[in-house]
Amino acid sequence: MNASCIFCKIIKGIIPSHKILETDLTYAFLDINPITRLGHVLVIPKHHAQYMHQVPDNHLADLLPVAKKIAAIVGGENYNVLQNNGRLAHQAVDHVHFHIIPKTQSEGLGIHWPSQSPSQDELALLAKSIKDKLDV
Amino acid sequence: MNASCIFCKIIKGIIPSHKILETDLTYAFLDINPITRLGHVLVIPKHHAQYMHQVPDNHLADLLPVAKKIAAIVGGENYNVLQNNGRLAHQAVDHVHFHIIPKTQSEGLGIHWPSQSPSQDELALLAKSIKDKLDV
Repeated sequence: MNASCIFCKIIKGIIPSHKILETDLTYAFLDINPITRLGHVLVIPKHHAQYMHQVPDNHLADLLPVAKKIAAIVGGENYNVLQNNGRLAHQAVDHVHFHIIPKTQSEGLGIHWPSQSPSQDELALLAKSIKDKLDV
Repeated sequence: MNASCIFCKIIKGIIPSHKILETDLTYAFLDINPITRLGHVLVIPKHHAQYMHQVPDNHLADLLPVAKKIAAIVGGENYNVLQNNGRLAHQAVDHVHFHIIPKTQSEGLGIHWPSQSPSQDELALLAKSIKDKLDV
């Protein structure tokens, strides 16, 4: 619990929310500023952390099975799961949250995808540099 | 294993990839058309499924702890985790994959966020309709 965090207050019931589902480690509720009318749901770990990589493994392990149940109902054949970390990456509330966003022709997440085509050598070097840091 | 699936072939080593990390249930490798030079990684369940909500819980539970390790290295202070389901939602390969995409001022995921402001009553009705279908 972070006393200044709006999502921690929602989990505790101090701030009301439109709850969808809850487990011991995970809480799911409606986004109050949805980008679709079909059910834009936030799934969050009860553990307070700003970044996904700071969340304990057991909380992360619990989260997607909860998201799956909700996506099966609101997602239909098209939906996005999005989790933003940091201001540059559009994180607005500093408590890790996964968006489940149903997608139609007219509503949902818009994406800009500026893909690149690096060489195999460039990719191999990049993979090595990441693996070296993983130390596995 | 789906014999016509490119990601199943990557998992089996039939098609080469720039592997980053692997567990019994999860495989992580570089996207060959990244949208950033900082390390655009795909994390996928070894179980073949088109949609996230079709993946067995144990595979989903394994995936984010793997993603977390990689994000801690490539993500820095800003990154997006994105998983697309269905053509309308920009899914290009029909095997569930989570993108880890580092974000900088000039590279990474661009997002269009057409947020709405429904009334509390509208949200309450929507939450009820979802919960009724969840049957919890």
